[in-house]
Amino acid sequence: MKAVIAAALIFVASAALAQDAVEKTAKRIIDAELAGSKSYDTLSYLTDEIGARPSGSKSAELAVKWTTQQFRSWGIDVHTENVMVPHWVRGVERGRLVSHNNQKIVLTALGGSVATPADGITAEVVEVKSYEELQSLGKMKIKGKIVYYNNPMNLELVRSGRAFEAYSDAVVFRGSGASHAAEYGAVAAVIRSVASASLRTPHTGAMRYDEKQPKIPAAAMTTEDAELVHRLIARGDKVRMHLVLTPKTLPDVQSQNVIAEIKGTERPDEIVLIGGHLDSWDLGTGAIDDGSGVAMVMETMRLLKELDIHPRRTIRAVLFMNEENGLKGGKNYFERRKDTELSKHIAAIETDAGSAIPTGYITTLHGDALEQLKKRAAVLNTIAPMVFESSKHTGADTSFLTDAGVPGFGLVPDSRHYFDYHHTPADTLDKVDAKELAQCSAAVAALAYIIAESGL
Amino acid sequence: MKAVIAAALIFVASAALAQDAVEKTAKRIIDAELAGSKSYDTLSYLTDEIGARPSGSKSAELAVKWTTQQFRSWGIDVHTENVMVPHWVRGVERGRLVSHNNQKIVLTALGGSVATPADGITAEVVEVKSYEELQSLGKMKIKGKIVYYNNPMNLELVRSGRAFEAYSDAVVFRGSGASHAAEYGAVAAVIRSVASASLRTPHTGAMRYDEKQPKIPAAAMTTEDAELVHRLIARGDKVRMHLVLTPKTLPDVQSQNVIAEIKGTERPDEIVLIGGHLDSWDLGTGAIDDGSGVAMVMETMRLLKELDIHPRRTIRAVLFMNEENGLKGGKNYFERRKDTELSKHIAAIETDAGSAIPTGYITTLHGDALEQLKKRAAVLNTIAPMVFESSKHTGADTSFLTDAGVPGFGLVPDSRHYFDYHHTPADTLDKVDAKELAQCSAAVAALAYIIAESGL
Repeated sequence: MKAVIAAALIFVASAALAQDAVEKTAKRIIDAELAGSKSYDTLSYLTDEIGARPSGSKSAELAVKWTTQQFRSWGIDVHTENVMVPHWVRGVERGRLVSHNNQKIVLTALGGSVATPADGITAEVVEVKSYEELQSLGKMKIKGKIVYYNNPMNLELVRSGRAFEAYSDAVVFRGSGASHAAEYGAVAAVIRSVASASLRTPHTGAMRYDEKQPKIPAAAMTTEDAELVHRLIARGDKVRMHLVLTPKTLPDVQSQNVIAEIKGTERPDEIVLIGGHLDSWDLGTGAIDDGSGVAMVMETMRLLKELDIHPRRTIRAVLFMNEENGLKGGKNYFERRKDTELSKHIAAIETDAGSAIPTGYITTLHGDALEQLKKRAAVLNTIAPMVFESSKHTGADTSFLTDAGVPGFGLVPDSRHYFDYHHTPADTLDKVDAKELAQCSAAVAALAYIIAESGL
Repeated sequence: MKAVIAAALIFVASAALAQDAVEKTAKRIIDAELAGSKSYDTLSYLTDEIGARPSGSKSAELAVKWTTQQFRSWGIDVHTENVMVPHWVRGVERGRLVSHNNQKIVLTALGGSVATPADGITAEVVEVKSYEELQSLGKMKIKGKIVYYNNPMNLELVRSGRAFEAYSDAVVFRGSGASHAAEYGAVAAVIRSVASASLRTPHTGAMRYDEKQPKIPAAAMTTEDAELVHRLIARGDKVRMHLVLTPKTLPDVQSQNVIAEIKGTERPDEIVLIGGHLDSWDLGTGAIDDGSGVAMVMETMRLLKELDIHPRRTIRAVLFMNEENGLKGGKNYFERRKDTELSKHIAAIETDAGSAIPTGYITTLHGDALEQLKKRAAVLNTIAPMVFESSKHTGADTSFLTDAGVPGFGLVPDSRHYFDYHHTPADTLDKVDAKELAQCSAAVAALAYIIAESGL
């Protein structure tokens, strides 16, 4: 009996010692990142030298090459995996109100939209706030018209720090609005930009067509223009808009996911994945979406290498291609592994929510597992106060993995200004604070290390 | 002796009674405006129905017609005075960095700029912070280059409420930068947008050529693009920019100042002028610059008429044309009167600084005259706390009058966000708060009444 108690005590003590050692190393990672981060340098190259990285573009190809070379130059194993991606290119985009002194309407095509005829379309604008309203108007009132979905972002929710919730509520018409409108005979669809701030700033984003409906062009007006059209319609005016959009969908392009690894010392087949996405929209330079995420993921690898830290399990960095308009990279990564090493993925950590000061993680963990993790990751609070919160979804690229049961984590930087810039020409390097980016990198590196070293 | 004292007492008492009566009426004006303002309706029509009103455009003509009709519909005497104005129209404007992966540079032509060749120009960018730096580089280093003036606005000054001071400091290169650069053989000039906020937002504004120098194209980059070019040059890169600008200067157009009057009951030949400008830049709808000023001036007249208030001196409302790129309206108004009724102008009140909450006036008065006025205008403090401050310049359109000795007044709304929108596509109705606009109108109407009733 005494021997049993003694053994138990030794076990508890050694577990505590091990936990101490993990925490100590995690703290070393955090301190090193906050003292000598290269995250901003990485992001600067991506945004200032390469710039916008839309899927299928030469710049996206450049980004694949440069990030691969960077990993290699840091002495980290890296390879690429081919993936076919869509290649949609923006053209002319112009709007004006022919009914109101030809006032200019500032708008941008939604990603994936078809073009208008070269000389544009001119039609009356019908404003709706919901699909129910669209349905109640019906074909009689919608046929031949431009449907305008006026669904403002809840700015109170944004300012209270729940911007992604406000985004989810506001963005519904961007993806499927055009096909819904087409069902009733609309000739085009325009949404109100999903925006938490605007200086006549259009926000693009992906849309997709329901193959059963005619494909009609789709664009996003700035909130200022959306308000103007709303005011005119509200006062009883008949509003007619002229719209020219000339985007093109070119043949799919072969592109790549970039995959870098630091092999585990004891369980090399067990994988902690950390990921962000290499592609961006074409309007800005993708600094917050998701150059920052790429920088954090790359920095985690560089830092572990520099500090000569080798966790027991493998840390795998994945720079996904085509998150914005197809998720082909995330899907391809999953498809290649679903029958093989899927079950070896012990965690998938995604960072695709900007790089303001980190506030915690969302995670698919809950209950005891979540409580356990909170204790083991308490050292992250030395970066900034961290909240771990359960969530069904923790990221887009890693959703294929988490839907299949891999525990997911999504970094949550302060979101209050994310949708001021998201998917706009203003998503540029100057919106990123170098110190906050380093804090985010530290949060990714520390969590990845802790899980890779001591499992979940 | 007793009789003299008695007479003096009667005089003082009756002056005090008169002052009481003026104050009471001024308070009635203020209360009526705050309770039932139509200022926002006026501004809405100008911006939502007419939109941008650049000099020489059809919209500017519409604005002349509509404002004239409005005065008439309110039963106010109104006429127009012809004035020839420049007619500059924006064309294509595109920039990219051929040295850096063809990154897009978001910019806008400065008003009055000549065009580049149709296929643009491509040249190395040389950054300077001052004319001294330009001079020290000299022809050797400037010839054949694009000169970039990087002169950021002092944002601390802006946030402390002294935005117009920060503007004056930052704007120097916009007007004369191109000709200075041309003197050393530059092929184009680009400035950093004079901006207190940006979401990749270009700020236009007037420039003028020195006739002794070659005319080279001039544009303003957004602060984001200005920072990008600065970073690249600072790290030692050679930066080459491709620039296409196709603006046109068309023949001058006959336009009008709109002049409305409420005749004085006792001294109809003495004039208190209140003015704002009808024209706007072409990018936004000129809501803050200067639709708001126009609305305040029109509202002052409407209100006095509605309240049946007839001051002793004439109140003359002038809606000037072409403040933005020529000041032809202000100059024409002065030239027509300099040898006749100039001396009958007892005050010129200009409002061209937006319509955020009013904080006071700048005025050419000083010393005792200023102290006297402060007392007599104390009732304006019931709108918001007001500061009257001496200034040499109190407005652009009225500068010809004040330079000739007419006492000047310039309304000073809170300026902290004015240069977020000024001269950009984001100068739209939604930037104006209806209540604050009414407060501004009340401040203009009350001051105009007080001076018209009791002189200076």
